Amino acid sequence: MKRFSVFLEDKLGLTTSQVEDLLLSKQTKTINKGDFLLEQGQICSHSFFVEEGLLRMYALNNDGKEHVVQFSPENWIAGDRGSIYFNEPSNYFIDAIEETTVVFIDQPFLDQLALVSPDFRTKNEFLLHNHIRHQQKRIQLLLGATAEERYLDFIQLYPNLLLRVPQWMIASYLGITPESLSRIRKALADKNFAG
Amino acid sequence: MKRFSVFLEDKLGLTTSQVEDLLLSKQTKTINKGDFLLEQGQICSHSFFVEEGLLRMYALNNDGKEHVVQFSPENWIAGDRGSIYFNEPSNYFIDAIEETTVVFIDQPFLDQLALVSPDFRTKNEFLLHNHIRHQQKRIQLLLGATAEERYLDFIQLYPNLLLRVPQWMIASYLGITPESLSRIRKALADKNFAG
Repeated sequence: MKRFSVFLEDKLGLTTSQVEDLLLSKQTKTINKGDFLLEQGQICSHSFFVEEGLLRMYALNNDGKEHVVQFSPENWIAGDRGSIYFNEPSNYFIDAIEETTVVFIDQPFLDQLALVSPDFRTKNEFLLHNHIRHQQKRIQLLLGATAEERYLDFIQLYPNLLLRVPQWMIASYLGITPESLSRIRKALADKNFAG
Repeated sequence: MKRFSVFLEDKLGLTTSQVEDLLLSKQTKTINKGDFLLEQGQICSHSFFVEEGLLRMYALNNDGKEHVVQFSPENWIAGDRGSIYFNEPSNYFIDAIEETTVVFIDQPFLDQLALVSPDFRTKNEFLLHNHIRHQQKRIQLLLGATAEERYLDFIQLYPNLLLRVPQWMIASYLGITPESLSRIRKALADKNFAG
């Protein structure tokens, strides 16, 4: 759990020895490409910290088309808050795009973090505000930016995903057709900008 | 500050006497319709609790077109977290659609709340998760729902705004043209569903 340890120290203000104690009883789980951590209709009881690999969270619309809400590569956390905090059956699926190793995070573990680290709640709030800020930007881009601007933002947010995620999934994340994405990529390549 | 007092008691777990003490030195500010609380390029140093009235938060895209990110009627909070917590010049405008009375909220006030109420941080985290959940749903709808589905969701989220917000602003929030909105409203009226 190297990445998770670093995350707890760097982002949540715990000391190395606190982290060692806390992780004594924690285990990781590795799932295969294509396996699900959450399916629509289930109650999501955990968040998933990605130690290695890549998760995708998506919803199905009424026509059965997939819409990617979030990719979670290493150091990201996936989970459906509507389900975790409000006990609602989830509208989402979370599956693995690659073989993925995750750490399960639940409320008792977060309460433990708050107990051992006086800074935890403040730092965690900061992470939540950051998440809200990113979502706000995504909403703004979905409303007002061109597909090309959204693609460039995607590259900036997920610099190392371009070769790991199939094109049609990136198109789904951007809310455009694979054909449009292909045109955008070509136009950018012509501008000598991206490959 | 009647609504703000109730908010602090009901949503953030403070007692009536704690609220009375805390609000002794707080004042409200009333701004006119069309006035700004935040303009693009400024640092946003406060959040704004809406005691009475209606705020709009929007961004301009490259063509100078407005895109509504959020409406904030009574009991909602408006503010640009990217600017408040990360000290970045804001990308957003916040203005008043009606004459609006707000309570200014800053970090020292939040720290005070955390000091007097042991439940505050947990309850505040809950509100943040709820906000993330709503944004996630909005992203999902922008990606995968029809304009009609988005309009019905808008009515559900903001039941009392239909008559308070001009149609073109609702269209801007939904990411569609005013003409499309007008068609959707007509189709729904024909179905005897909404006015």
